[in-house]
Amino acid sequence: MAEALTERLAHIVGAGHVSTDPDVLAARSVDHTGRYRGRACALVRPGTGDQVAAVLRACRDAGAYVTVQGGRTSLVAGTVPEHDDVLLSTERLTTIGDVDTVERRISVGAGVTLAAVQKTAAAAGLVFGVDLAARDSATVGGMASTNAGGLRTVRYGNMGEQVLGLDIALPDGSVVHRHSQVRRDNTGYDLTSLFVGAEGTLGVITALDLRLYPVPTHRATAVCGFADLDALVETGRRFRDLDGIAALELIDARAGRLAAEHLGVPVPVAGSWLLLIELAGDTDQTERLADALTDAQVCDEPAVGVDIGAQQRLWNVRESLAEVVGLFGPPLKFDVSLPLSAIGGFAESAGKLVAAHAPDAIPVLFGHIGEGNLHLNVLRCALDTEPALYAAMMALIADCGGNVSSEHGVGTRKRDYVAMSRTPADIAAMRAVKAALDPRGYLNPAVLFAQ
Amino acid sequence: MAEALTERLAHIVGAGHVSTDPDVLAARSVDHTGRYRGRACALVRPGTGDQVAAVLRACRDAGAYVTVQGGRTSLVAGTVPEHDDVLLSTERLTTIGDVDTVERRISVGAGVTLAAVQKTAAAAGLVFGVDLAARDSATVGGMASTNAGGLRTVRYGNMGEQVLGLDIALPDGSVVHRHSQVRRDNTGYDLTSLFVGAEGTLGVITALDLRLYPVPTHRATAVCGFADLDALVETGRRFRDLDGIAALELIDARAGRLAAEHLGVPVPVAGSWLLLIELAGDTDQTERLADALTDAQVCDEPAVGVDIGAQQRLWNVRESLAEVVGLFGPPLKFDVSLPLSAIGGFAESAGKLVAAHAPDAIPVLFGHIGEGNLHLNVLRCALDTEPALYAAMMALIADCGGNVSSEHGVGTRKRDYVAMSRTPADIAAMRAVKAALDPRGYLNPAVLFAQ
Ligand SMILES: Cc1cc2nc3c(=O)[nH]c(=O)nc-3n(C[C@H](O)[C@H](O)[C@H](O)COP(=O)(O)OP(=O)(O)OC[C@H]3O[C@@H](n4cnc5c(N)ncnc54)[C@H](O)[C@@H]3O)c2cc1C
Ligand SMILES: Cc1cc2nc3c(=O)[nH]c(=O)nc-3n(C[C@H](O)[C@H](O)[C@H](O)COP(=O)(O)OP(=O)(O)OC[C@H]3O[C@@H](n4cnc5c(N)ncnc54)[C@H](O)[C@@H]3O)c2cc1C
Repeated sequence: MAEALTERLAHIVGAGHVSTDPDVLAARSVDHTGRYRGRACALVRPGTGDQVAAVLRACRDAGAYVTVQGGRTSLVAGTVPEHDDVLLSTERLTTIGDVDTVERRISVGAGVTLAAVQKTAAAAGLVFGVDLAARDSATVGGMASTNAGGLRTVRYGNMGEQVLGLDIALPDGSVVHRHSQVRRDNTGYDLTSLFVGAEGTLGVITALDLRLYPVPTHRATAVCGFADLDALVETGRRFRDLDGIAALELIDARAGRLAAEHLGVPVPVAGSWLLLIELAGDTDQTERLADALTDAQVCDEPAVGVDIGAQQRLWNVRESLAEVVGLFGPPLKFDVSLPLSAIGGFAESAGKLVAAHAPDAIPVLFGHIGEGNLHLNVLRCALDTEPALYAAMMALIADCGGNVSSEHGVGTRKRDYVAMSRTPADIAAMRAVKAALDPRGYLNPAVLFAQ
Repeated sequence: MAEALTERLAHIVGAGHVSTDPDVLAARSVDHTGRYRGRACALVRPGTGDQVAAVLRACRDAGAYVTVQGGRTSLVAGTVPEHDDVLLSTERLTTIGDVDTVERRISVGAGVTLAAVQKTAAAAGLVFGVDLAARDSATVGGMASTNAGGLRTVRYGNMGEQVLGLDIALPDGSVVHRHSQVRRDNTGYDLTSLFVGAEGTLGVITALDLRLYPVPTHRATAVCGFADLDALVETGRRFRDLDGIAALELIDARAGRLAAEHLGVPVPVAGSWLLLIELAGDTDQTERLADALTDAQVCDEPAVGVDIGAQQRLWNVRESLAEVVGLFGPPLKFDVSLPLSAIGGFAESAGKLVAAHAPDAIPVLFGHIGEGNLHLNVLRCALDTEPALYAAMMALIADCGGNVSSEHGVGTRKRDYVAMSRTPADIAAMRAVKAALDPRGYLNPAVLFAQ
């Protein structure tokens, strides 16, 4: 990298926060599975939103590319630099404001982790609406940029629904402050929704106002076993619009059994497929859940968790999945959205695809069934079989009427498949918006768009 | 208008659907209050989405301006042409698809009225999430373009939350189809949210997939009277995040009394300010509502509607407001969002402003208190006092930390006040997006942006 740029960056953020150390850069240029690797010329860690804007201006003027990094937990290699980029890390943007318990909101820096927000909310007797397993590393800025979902989407919506306001540094170095003290705001374009989910291609989020919720006083949890995936999906469909639905998670019993073996987490019910259901609200939910399970008449003997301890034991099955899957090395992950009616057929075809491409691999399915959002994890998939399997799987998803990218986003990994879920006119409109805000195309240049 | 363009338009849509009749044009060039008037050169009524796209191309090529018209119920003069425009009416885009009772959705043309969607949903045993008094004329295309709110926002969200997919003809004549059979979709920018609320400045919505909901089986309604507005707002704040909250409407008792006098709709409780509260869900709500009212301890003797007849009588107070207000001629309307804490102070200052500018006028306040969304109606406001009062009111709103434009949008009426709620960088970003999709600036040229 030109020394002039390093100097200018050091001038902006302080010399201690710019690094060109090859080891540091190498460690930051790989995704968290170790599968995808790029190359960077510098790491810069601005401490304020204005510094972020100044860094962007400096890089743009110098003709450098910039890749934004939050917690680097992206599952689509969204932080891997491909253009010898400057890595802009949000790790120092960690201000946590006071919780406003009346309006139920909090202002935080983009680099604050999900766990820190959850902890702060809990201390104020409130709860944050998004939860996901990467909570200790994932940042709220990264989560907003990918519009992350997770375990509570069926109740509170995605990350986008939690964002009440934001500060974002645009590629031209200007800063847009979109804050509102009110819940309704139709004054012009909904830029907040445009920046949410834009995966850092339109600007760098530097701070956010986030919504918080009252903690539900009552909860009831159940796990049901099913022999047949279609029957499970049908039950999920009936439950997803139920008042107070708080979780609706599909678990492959294969993974459940692996968890039982390796981690000592017992599988609570028989069946090939498990459905975790939770209701929450401000009145007793146990009876409602029991009634709903009786009405649904699908699963014989659900395991029901009435007290917190029993509920936690049921959740352990779901929570242990990432760890179980990890026992086999970094899995190949597919994050897909499917019409509910297509899920059974997809699972079968996907199993066959995996068997054909990687006979030794183990496909494990779980996901947020309320949204038709599945995570297919292929364990023990050799690196060299991956590209062909990946492409074949994307085609299968499109055939099933699904979206190639669901809650994890497109990143660098899926950019060549966007055209399977979007029409040419749609992609042209997206490119026009990108060009309008980043005419030089220097911000997150490898993300989202086919090269 | 150049005859060549008329001919080309007639060729696209059929001669019977192009008009240059001065009377027709005059009738369509005024807003529904009669206060704002413009001038148009032609009316064109395309019958399909492709025809809309072809009309746009023709107008762009001819250097003509286009103003889009749905049901023309805009309360911010959003359909008034200021550039001798071609009026593009969606009135023939009235296809109504079958209700998908399993996925709970329906596909409709942009020109379908809200009432027609509501009727179709009801016939299938479902309900549409947005309701507003202009239901017989307002179109779903117009409602999506203004991201309309209304009486049910506190439960189901705004119009944007109901839009699962859309077809939109862009200014370049291309058509973006954004449909998804699934509930999650993070494949690229959320263009749907960008087009929703863009008030027709980025394209013409031609068709929509809309979400429907199960009809709640149980309902309970109450009206509480308050001597003090602040106390009412505080009660609204406590109720707005309650499970099953279905309506939270503020009513100025002055208007209630006018309704009692002129329309024979009795005011159910004493007090200067009335709060209509409704809970809905799949279990009995009467007791929950009674408990919540006791907990809140603010209002002495609420009128509670247990059966449908009694509930409807309570709703009549709210539903009669538009009619009552109309008795005095078209009111001057302010649609504002305020932090809840600022509402009491705003009401007082606004009353003084009205008294100072228009001593004979009667200010009447109502609104969706859950969202801090107030409608201030100034009755008997002489036309010549309007401009000064309007500007002063906008300044007051901004001073109170509110948004100058809430659910009605900006239209032509509020474009000069956007800068009170948006920073220069924000407006620049909006203009950049507009220029990217409509470089000639010919679509809804008088809407949203200061000239
Ligand atoms: C164990 C595990 C479980 C997971 N579970 C879920 C889940 O249930 N649901 C789900 O949705 N995801 C899940 N993920 C994926 C991941 O956690 C999310 O995508 C998360 O939103 C990424 O946050 P991050 O801070 O790590 O972002 P990063 O990985 O650092 O970045 C993600 C993308 O956003 C950009 N970016 C980051 N910060 C900013 C910013 N401040 N401004 C602009 N752009 C920025 C980056 O350039 C990149 O393109 C999981 C990941 C792991 C490892
Ligand atoms: C009695 C009454 C009560 C009302 N109550 C409410 C309320 O509670 N909440 C609320 O939010 N609003 C309310 N309104 C305002 C109005 O009904 C809404 O703004 C509604 O969304 C307008 O729909 P429309 O079809 O009449 O649109 P129009 O008035 O025709 O157009 C509105 C704007 O959208 C554009 N537009 C119209 N159709 C399209 C399209 N297909 N594609 C792109 N752009 C388009 C127009 O150019 C214009 O800028 C009320 C109005 C009245 C008269």
